Amino acid sequence: MSESRSSALHTDRYELTMLDAALQDGTAGRRCVFEVFGRRLSGGRRFGVVAGTGRLLSLIRDFRFGHEELAFLRDEHVVDPATLDYLEDYRFTGTITGYREGELYFPGSPVLTIEGTFAEAVVLETLALSVLNHDSAVATAAARMSVAAGDRPLAEMGSRRAGEQSAVAAARAAYIAGFGATSNLEAGRAWGVPTMGTAAHAWTLLHDTEEDAFRAQISALGTDTTLLVDTYDIRTGVETAIRVAGTELGGVRLDSGDLPTVAAAVREQLDALGATRTRITVTSDLDEFAIAALAASPVDAYGVGTSVVTGSGVPTAGMVYKLVARQDADGGWVPVAKASTDKASRGGRKTAFRALDDGTATSEQIIVADGFDTSPAVDAAHPDARPLQVVLAERGDIDNACEGRVGVAAARAHHERVREELPVRALALSRSDPAIPTVFVQR
Amino acid sequence: MSESRSSALHTDRYELTMLDAALQDGTAGRRCVFEVFGRRLSGGRRFGVVAGTGRLLSLIRDFRFGHEELAFLRDEHVVDPATLDYLEDYRFTGTITGYREGELYFPGSPVLTIEGTFAEAVVLETLALSVLNHDSAVATAAARMSVAAGDRPLAEMGSRRAGEQSAVAAARAAYIAGFGATSNLEAGRAWGVPTMGTAAHAWTLLHDTEEDAFRAQISALGTDTTLLVDTYDIRTGVETAIRVAGTELGGVRLDSGDLPTVAAAVREQLDALGATRTRITVTSDLDEFAIAALAASPVDAYGVGTSVVTGSGVPTAGMVYKLVARQDADGGWVPVAKASTDKASRGGRKTAFRALDDGTATSEQIIVADGFDTSPAVDAAHPDARPLQVVLAERGDIDNACEGRVGVAAARAHHERVREELPVRALALSRSDPAIPTVFVQR
Repeated sequence: MSESRSSALHTDRYELTMLDAALQDGTAGRRCVFEVFGRRLSGGRRFGVVAGTGRLLSLIRDFRFGHEELAFLRDEHVVDPATLDYLEDYRFTGTITGYREGELYFPGSPVLTIEGTFAEAVVLETLALSVLNHDSAVATAAARMSVAAGDRPLAEMGSRRAGEQSAVAAARAAYIAGFGATSNLEAGRAWGVPTMGTAAHAWTLLHDTEEDAFRAQISALGTDTTLLVDTYDIRTGVETAIRVAGTELGGVRLDSGDLPTVAAAVREQLDALGATRTRITVTSDLDEFAIAALAASPVDAYGVGTSVVTGSGVPTAGMVYKLVARQDADGGWVPVAKASTDKASRGGRKTAFRALDDGTATSEQIIVADGFDTSPAVDAAHPDARPLQVVLAERGDIDNACEGRVGVAAARAHHERVREELPVRALALSRSDPAIPTVFVQR
Repeated sequence: MSESRSSALHTDRYELTMLDAALQDGTAGRRCVFEVFGRRLSGGRRFGVVAGTGRLLSLIRDFRFGHEELAFLRDEHVVDPATLDYLEDYRFTGTITGYREGELYFPGSPVLTIEGTFAEAVVLETLALSVLNHDSAVATAAARMSVAAGDRPLAEMGSRRAGEQSAVAAARAAYIAGFGATSNLEAGRAWGVPTMGTAAHAWTLLHDTEEDAFRAQISALGTDTTLLVDTYDIRTGVETAIRVAGTELGGVRLDSGDLPTVAAAVREQLDALGATRTRITVTSDLDEFAIAALAASPVDAYGVGTSVVTGSGVPTAGMVYKLVARQDADGGWVPVAKASTDKASRGGRKTAFRALDDGTATSEQIIVADGFDTSPAVDAAHPDARPLQVVLAERGDIDNACEGRVGVAAARAHHERVREELPVRALALSRSDPAIPTVFVQR
């Protein structure tokens, strides 16, 4: 594979040219606070789901410039020799706090706060945003589908509609946000996501008859397998399936046609044949709206492809990575913010709480603090508010509880728990304002 | 990093369960022809651009099941021991033909044809589609932007809005389709795409004044650098930039505001200050329509982020991987096709030509052949037609001219050449039918 193992060049060139210039003019060592946040929720979503944090922390651990990376930067004259020396020894030694993976976020939520020298923090911008923007977009779409599906299981099967590495990240993000399984084997190996899948149309076409294909599949995978019945005529397919498998057949899958109509007809046919416990899985071009529209249909499980891995119309979450505070020449602190039209940011370190009323979220409270001092432990105005930020890395030491399979399982559990706090209006799929307002409190 | 080096588990589980069943029922060794094609061009696009082929071939070369992959499949009981033995020795030994990378495609174009045993070809489905669907979606969007930009240079800077690995693939695809540079350093290292970038808003905010920031940047990067002038007030920013850099300043960058208005005002101001050769780069939320709308504005270069890496509304190309012909039990061949509603496919091996009239493309001619025999070398009805398919791998031996940096350069050159064949109507950005019709000819 052509990809390098190090994550260090997943960096926009301007980060290194800024580093280069900052090492020259003496500002590289100024302590800085960078913040990742979204100015708005794209697509009229009512809430966003943070995902990617556990992946990002591992990638920051691997953010080291090896021989190959340094040679490229030298040969291309991206930076000068002093900067190459700095990068050779680079490792992040700062502090990262942020929302737990699986947490909900709203406009302005300080999803990630990176504190360190300008030099060490500025170079993480692209990597942090790539991971969080992709994974959070998928998780947000997945959560909406999970809300729409209710108790029916959802499987992610969109790997073929996403870049081969993003597909793995997408399966992971969808699982965190409520999907139960994925078709992607690498997501199973790397992240412990349960995998599923039985047969494609090619399986039926490989055989001289549909019956041959069904017989061979049942022989290999057992009667509890799911047979794909729409390669030719669905009615004949179902009839053949039950004739071959018997009424204990695990399931049939429908991948085409007008699903409410077809599902109802197939259920009726299965019941008439005595296969009353044979499940119906549908998998054709589903998104959260199609899933919701099937709520009254006799469907037992959904498989979702394109729409979940592409964020169902919102393929990227739109989070930005902004400098919000820094030291000045005397070591004092300065909150900073740009004033650009439509892109103004809010300076100062943020501490975030979710205000709750009887267990239901009522607002995102963001306290803007006046410096590098310790964040407030509680929000005085909302004593029951839930603190949203946790320490993810301290003096460069990354909390490995967030990483790997353990991190994924914890994120999924956290998401399930915090989704319970959402007000009912947040569960509607239509475009709207965020489900709760963001309230900034200046300290 | 948690990603495995092998590409072998970038596979949907059902591919391996089909393999498992086929090894048991004796159909695994049937020779098969699988075809990658798109049923339609999504988003009312007038043409599509094939990209990813060179990446895919390298990934197929690395499609091997090592200890870690086999252990996962065994521990999860995905396949039985005989299948594990088969996978341990797996390497693709078949033939791949396809459109050159950078080639244009239309509905039904046989973008890739994979011939081999069912066993060896079925397991490549997800990997092939992940790569081609992602990269072709980006390349298609990029080509539209390149058409809109005309002679003005275009830089890709969307890494932060795509998964960290897809970002590299996106930079590569955009370069093939006409972009001149990328912000992504890994795309420079891995694929030879020229990289660019100078400074972000954080650079200005790091300093006590905008003037300090500009002075330091010029000191480090030279007068020919590009200064970002919209952190605070643009008019003041431009004035400061020229005062500090002199009238030989290379460029200014605008990243916010109503760009036609702002660009005109900045050009007037620069000229009045004597900086008549200072270039204006704009970078705020551009897509092909915004680029076209700036055609009459005094803009010298464009930087495009989100829209190009997310396919400008079409984040995935919608290509499918379908069995179109196979051997039967006697070794004879059978063209096959599913009949599913709205998803019917066309059986038989395809040979594709682009019919030309005086150098301008008039139709996509697809000859459907009756078996495994050699494809026709010319299209008899269109003697000037250009053959579209080349051999990419023969008996498992991959043509390395398509891989790496050399492959990228060749793809970019090929794209530039074949885009010249498009009829004028194909260059319009509005939604439409494909620019040329696809004509199937049954042999």
